[in-house]
Amino acid sequence: MNEIRIFSPATVANVSCGFDVLGFCLDSVGDEMVIRKTDKKGIYITKIEGFDLPYEAELNVAGVSALAMYEAAKPDCGFEIEIYKNIKPGSGIGSSAASAVGSVFGMNELLGRPYNKIQLTEFAIKGEAVASKCEHADNLAPALFGGFTLVKSISPVEILQIPTPENLYATIIHPQIEIKTSESRAILPKEVPLQNAITQWANVGSLIHSLHTSDYELLKSSLHDVIVEPYRSQLIPHFNEVKKAALQNGALGTGISGSGPSIFSLCKGLESAINVKDAIEKIYSKTGIEFDIHVSKINTEGVKIL
Amino acid sequence: MNEIRIFSPATVANVSCGFDVLGFCLDSVGDEMVIRKTDKKGIYITKIEGFDLPYEAELNVAGVSALAMYEAAKPDCGFEIEIYKNIKPGSGIGSSAASAVGSVFGMNELLGRPYNKIQLTEFAIKGEAVASKCEHADNLAPALFGGFTLVKSISPVEILQIPTPENLYATIIHPQIEIKTSESRAILPKEVPLQNAITQWANVGSLIHSLHTSDYELLKSSLHDVIVEPYRSQLIPHFNEVKKAALQNGALGTGISGSGPSIFSLCKGLESAINVKDAIEKIYSKTGIEFDIHVSKINTEGVKIL
Repeated sequence: MNEIRIFSPATVANVSCGFDVLGFCLDSVGDEMVIRKTDKKGIYITKIEGFDLPYEAELNVAGVSALAMYEAAKPDCGFEIEIYKNIKPGSGIGSSAASAVGSVFGMNELLGRPYNKIQLTEFAIKGEAVASKCEHADNLAPALFGGFTLVKSISPVEILQIPTPENLYATIIHPQIEIKTSESRAILPKEVPLQNAITQWANVGSLIHSLHTSDYELLKSSLHDVIVEPYRSQLIPHFNEVKKAALQNGALGTGISGSGPSIFSLCKGLESAINVKDAIEKIYSKTGIEFDIHVSKINTEGVKIL
Repeated sequence: MNEIRIFSPATVANVSCGFDVLGFCLDSVGDEMVIRKTDKKGIYITKIEGFDLPYEAELNVAGVSALAMYEAAKPDCGFEIEIYKNIKPGSGIGSSAASAVGSVFGMNELLGRPYNKIQLTEFAIKGEAVASKCEHADNLAPALFGGFTLVKSISPVEILQIPTPENLYATIIHPQIEIKTSESRAILPKEVPLQNAITQWANVGSLIHSLHTSDYELLKSSLHDVIVEPYRSQLIPHFNEVKKAALQNGALGTGISGSGPSIFSLCKGLESAINVKDAIEKIYSKTGIEFDIHVSKINTEGVKIL
């Protein structure tokens, strides 16, 4: 096998209470990439469609993660990478993670899988850091492993795969506005009230328990973020209206996807997710802000060969 | 049935990372109580052995929880309560919770179980508040439900029963010193670094996952408390030495039981728990401080009829 086409999915990080540690994987949104073995050594990005991104491998998220793996593997060949990007950079649903994961997953397949997913995460972290200026894996982990993941530690990389209830869907709205990463970080306090932190870890614990037991009511009562959302939601126009409408129309929970501006809702069943989509659409179409909206089953497979 | 003898177990609250929300139940340490129906209406504490506690029901933890239930149930009888106390008040292994739980559990049995365990928790909270000056359920929940519990909320009472791995044992040392509850509270900061809070909820999430999956290695790497232990451990003589010796001798984790002074270690298997007991005993017998030390299987049953 000398060439492979892969699907690298969008992901939702944080998941309300799980700031910086939890994430889940989407099914209906993702990038496609073609990875091709070449005689000429090195990593070459030969095509980028969808968005304007650098072709130099050292400056491109997919290129940097590919280079990290290439330097470790020292193969007798090179690789060409074509990127068909559907996830808009800066949308808050793991655009850079999809790129970082796609190249290393594809190369690993072409090399006969010398690396496991933890090792692939380590390479992908290098690519992710190009986009987000810090090493983190809360989008990489669900993109690679699928389903719900908990990043227990990134040094060393420790990732837990949490079970996904059968009938869980997400509705994602992406308002076409830009939030600067620097701003979404600067707005967070360095210290938080102990009482709020306790509420947050009670919710993280019960969220994990609800996923293990497919307890949708408990999932619903766990999807609260008393630490980060009160700050970051200020940066997303009409966040509170969207959240209220989603919950009134049956969403189990609604929160900021990653650092925004995308907003996710988790729903029991496809019908509920579509109802929530309709309700959010109604609100956002009045705002004059352009937006995309998607319904997706939770993707338990992660990145895959097409 | 007019009389019942029950065993009301000791419990460990907090469990390192799970400050204020997690707890587990012990098997080898607990109080015994006899509850007896009487024609004379009211709640009467007729015997207390082991420790010097008030006989007036309104001032006694077991009496106050009994009164809360008695006022709700309005039965045609009264109750006598005998308390054979083995858990020293103030030891940090749920002495007041055992009393509060025992009386309402026993009365409920004699009345034909009109209340479920959530309702019993609500009554017991009233008794617990007499001893600890605030309403909390992190010792009550494991005493009533057994095993590991997560108190998601106390208003309304929401308690999750988390699975207990088959082969899990605890070693508990109780140094015979007094820590004032006021002091152990005052020493805690009102605000904590966000970064530490994130570490803590990653650990809570992975601890819950480890209990669901019986993953002892993950349990071990989750039993860390970066928020409370650094403060409260200062109040417990030789805490760091005990912890180091326990971990070196195979404990999965070691932390403060409740607000101390008791120290718990969780261990895989009875043999390991005994090794840890021996190692801690060696350290503490040099300190000149009197102490009790116990090994206990995790009790998955909770309070029970003898």
